[in-house]
Parts: sequence; C-alpha cells; structure tokens
Amino acid sequence: MSRVIALSGGIGGAKLALGLSHVLSPEDLLIVANTGDDCEHLGLSISPDIDTLTYTLAGLDNQVLGWGRRDESWAFMETLEALGGETWFRLGDRDLALHVERTRRLGAGETLSVVTQRFAGRLGVQATLLPMSDDPVRTRILTPGGWLDFQHWFVREQCRPAVLDIAFHGADRARPNAALLEALDARPRAIIICPSNPLISIEPILAVPGIREAISRCGAPVLAVSPILGREAVKGPTARMLADLGENPSAAAVARRYGKLLTHYVMEPGDDATGIEVRVHRAQTLMRTLEEKVALARAILSYL
Amino acid sequence: MSRVIALSGGIGGAKLALGLSHVLSPEDLLIVANTGDDCEHLGLSISPDIDTLTYTLAGLDNQVLGWGRRDESWAFMETLEALGGETWFRLGDRDLALHVERTRRLGAGETLSVVTQRFAGRLGVQATLLPMSDDPVRTRILTPGGWLDFQHWFVREQCRPAVLDIAFHGADRARPNAALLEALDARPRAIIICPSNPLISIEPILAVPGIREAISRCGAPVLAVSPILGREAVKGPTARMLADLGENPSAAAVARRYGKLLTHYVMEPGDDATGIEVRVHRAQTLMRTLEEKVALARAILSYL
Repeated sequence: MSRVIALSGGIGGAKLALGLSHVLSPEDLLIVANTGDDCEHLGLSISPDIDTLTYTLAGLDNQVLGWGRRDESWAFMETLEALGGETWFRLGDRDLALHVERTRRLGAGETLSVVTQRFAGRLGVQATLLPMSDDPVRTRILTPGGWLDFQHWFVREQCRPAVLDIAFHGADRARPNAALLEALDARPRAIIICPSNPLISIEPILAVPGIREAISRCGAPVLAVSPILGREAVKGPTARMLADLGENPSAAAVARRYGKLLTHYVMEPGDDATGIEVRVHRAQTLMRTLEEKVALARAILSYL
Repeated sequence: MSRVIALSGGIGGAKLALGLSHVLSPEDLLIVANTGDDCEHLGLSISPDIDTLTYTLAGLDNQVLGWGRRDESWAFMETLEALGGETWFRLGDRDLALHVERTRRLGAGETLSVVTQRFAGRLGVQATLLPMSDDPVRTRILTPGGWLDFQHWFVREQCRPAVLDIAFHGADRARPNAALLEALDARPRAIIICPSNPLISIEPILAVPGIREAISRCGAPVLAVSPILGREAVKGPTARMLADLGENPSAAAVARRYGKLLTHYVMEPGDDATGIEVRVHRAQTLMRTLEEKVALARAILSYL
C-alpha cells in the first residue's frame, strides 16, 4: 500500500482533493480535514471544511454560491429569521441535515471520524476523509476588539477586523487522528498540502501534537501547493491575513511558513521563488474546471 | 379583568382555541398547552401541541396535511434520509426552525414559557399561549411490549400497540406554570377544556400538582367540549385508547373522566348524556371551517 495523504481546508483544498480523487484509486487517497473552523452554532456542531470536502468529493458542492450544497433551499433560514433567530451563518435546508444528524451522533458518543466517514460514504465519497482530530480544536482570531471565534470573524464580521494573532484553542490537548498516524507510519507515497490558507487551514492540522513530527519522520515527500497567485489568494482572506501579520503575501511567503516540513513546492509560473529552499515545480495552480483540477493532481503526482 | 382560560392539546383543541381567539380580545384569552407530548428527537426539543396551537392561531397551520406548518418543504428530511438518519418523525424545513431555535434558547437557560410566547408573538399570535409547566413532563404508553415514549407509540408505531396504561413521567415533580396559577387566582370568567384527547392531552395538564386544585378553587365555571362524536373521535386515537383502557368510548365517558371538575359539558345533539352529572349543552362540536370554530366558541361563551 502506498497512500497519498492530503491535508486540506475548505474550498481551495477541496478542489485539489477532487482532482486527486480522479487520478488515485479510493484506497490510495486519505484526505485529512482541518477542524479548526468548526463551530457550535444554534446548538449544532458544524464542520465547514469537512462538509466542503464531502460535498465537493460527492459532486454535491454548490457551484453557484461557491460554498455549501447544491440544489439548496432556504426555508429553514427564512423561518429562523421570522422567529428572530441568528441568521448571519447561512444554513441551507439540506446542509442542515448534516449538522443536525452529526450533532445527534456526537451527542450519542460517536467520534467525529466515524460520523465524517459515515456521511461521506452515504453521499458517495469513495476516498477516506478524516478530521485531523476527534478532539475539538477551535481557531480564534485576535482583533483590535479582542479575540473572536473564527466563524464570528470570518462570516459574521466578514473578515473586516484586522488580524493581530491567531490561536488554535484546544490544539495542545487534541489527540491526532489515530488513522492518520497509522497511515503516516505505513510508508505513504507522499503528503500533499493542498492550496489552502496556511494560517487557518493547514497550521491548525500541524498544531495537533504529533502530526508535524509524524510527517517529518515518515520519510515521504511532502509537497505543498501555493494558495497564492501573484499577490492574491484565489479565494478567501489568505493574502490579507498574511499582510496583517506582517508578511509580504506571496507564494514564497507561504513556502517559508511551512519551512523544513516541505520537500517540494508547486507554484504558478512567473511567481517569485526567491528564498524557497525546496524543489520548486511550476504548474497552473488555478483550478476552475474539473479538467484543471485533474491536470494539477496529475502534475503533482508526476513530481513525486 | 375576566379571562377565559382554555386547556388544550393539539389539533382538535387548537380548532376551538382559534374560534375563541376570534370572539375574545387577546388579553381575555389564555391558552394552556399540554406538554406531555413533548419529546427530544434528533437532539431537538419538540413541543407538538404548543406548535400546533402556535401555527393554528397564527394562521400558519397546514390544512392539507392536517398537521405541521403551511407552505412546508422537505429538503431537510430528504437529506436526512440520504444520510441514514431517523425519518419516522417528519420535520419540515420551516417547522425545523422552531425546534432548532427553541432548543438553542432552552439550552441558553430560557424557560419554555418565554420561548413559547416569543415564537407565538413573532408569528403573529395575539392571545397568550403558555405551556402547562416549564418542567418536563413526558407521557409514556404501556403496551404489551413495554413502555414506549409517547411519540414512539403515536408516530413511529402509528398507535398500533394496545394501550395498557398511561403515565406522565415527571408530572409529580413539575411546577405548574406560575402565570396560569396567577390567572386562576384572578377570578377567571371560565375554564374551557378544549375537545382534546382527555387521556393524553388534558389529563397531563391536570396531573401537574396544583393545577386541578386551582381550577376547582377558583370558582369559575369549568366547561369541557366532548372530543367524541357518536363513538368516534374527530381525529386521533381517543376512542380507541378509551376502549383499550376498558371504557365504552363516548362523549359521556369523557365527561365521567373529568368528573367533579366540570360544571358544564358540551356535546353533539343526539349523543347519549346518560350519567353526566353536570349541565349539558348541545352544540355542533365538529369544526371544519373557521365559521364552525367561531360558532362553537360563541355558543360556549353563551352558556357561561
């Protein structure tokens, strides 16, 4: 067995995960999702990155909205608004079923891993999808007005407050996903860090004690794909957050953050690779169509 | 102030409550809902009788289904089914908003009374609607296979198992709704027992310590409307349950169950009143249209 292990956040990472799922057999692909974005909202346990990966891999992602589920309806949300409930976090009627059933199962003692695999399997995902940990890790953002829960900063405040610091609450006590450690110890073919926001999608995974060490120890190539093209992220606040934290937003800045963990780095032709100390590969990292996702996945595997 | 206090279960009781709301000013009508049917399902706190009353009084009841909310959609339920969740208890997308927001508010420490009033107000109900108690009371049904939670017997098993006994768990420890006791102590104009199932809609209310006594003590007329026409209930398992418990299902059997609590009883012309020891009034108790609901409400008030 020679497995590829992909570390991913939401939208951007899920695009590459989908590409990989088209060029690898299901048993050769393990996708590990960030859970630092998870939140409890309306009493429900919500795992945005797991859900984005599940929907994308199942072909159920909403390509009109760019987030959430395909064929979504909003009757729940409309009624919640009429009742005076909190509506800043949009939950579609279909999406909601995942959150309600996950909350129920977690409450009944199932692990997030078991629930995640069950839902992915039910919706037709064939690759293995796992959370980085079954223990809660919660990303928080320090803003001029104080610490905010990640989704409060990201969705409710629409990323407006400046980012002064980032913390992964619970990470120091979280146990890494046992199946991930097992896969890392079983001579994986490669570790792929998807083009996700390093600050809030990948670093929470690496902050779970034991994961970074197991990646370094496993001896497999570790390849990251830049989430930055030129000076901008394809989607989301990656560039802006890097700038807030005093870094020059660039593909090279992301590579520097991963440092010695990497052996390979994939970035857009033309972007500045100055200071990157690992093997640099040039590829089209922008993935608009399925063909582009598959092409990038193929290119990546050819480098390894 | 001379208030009418109506005790009600779900569908049948809500019809009369709606009629009363058309002939009494909002400040003169207090509707007290049974909460013995309440359940925790999918981790949500569900109050079927409160919700039926809310929807009916707000003009939002689903007249096609005969239960639930108008203009309902089922995307949540379809997805829950795809995920392998429990689908025997049907929760529409709009209905769900009530349950999710109620569960959240109860979890945050609000009382069921506050939540009930808030939702009713938001949806346009003008009369006061209150649960019999803010403490949990759960009706359970003894069947040949053992005790079942009420909704398991009623919905999941579709009332099939024979009813050997009925218990109201928690009733002995439940505190009566303080606003109801206050209203009963403030010389109400009348207590009206709506045409609900006595066994599972009205008796749970009367089982909350202090409510029956406060009704008897208040000195106001106590009028019940028969939920039985001929030998059948208009809707639901009332007649069947009475028969299971060894009673001859009839309007008179219901009056006997209420016993000395009553001063007036309203029943369909032609039904046998033998053995009823309170003043009997004859009226059309079948309420198909709004006009029939209002007519019955008017008739009842004329008897008092």
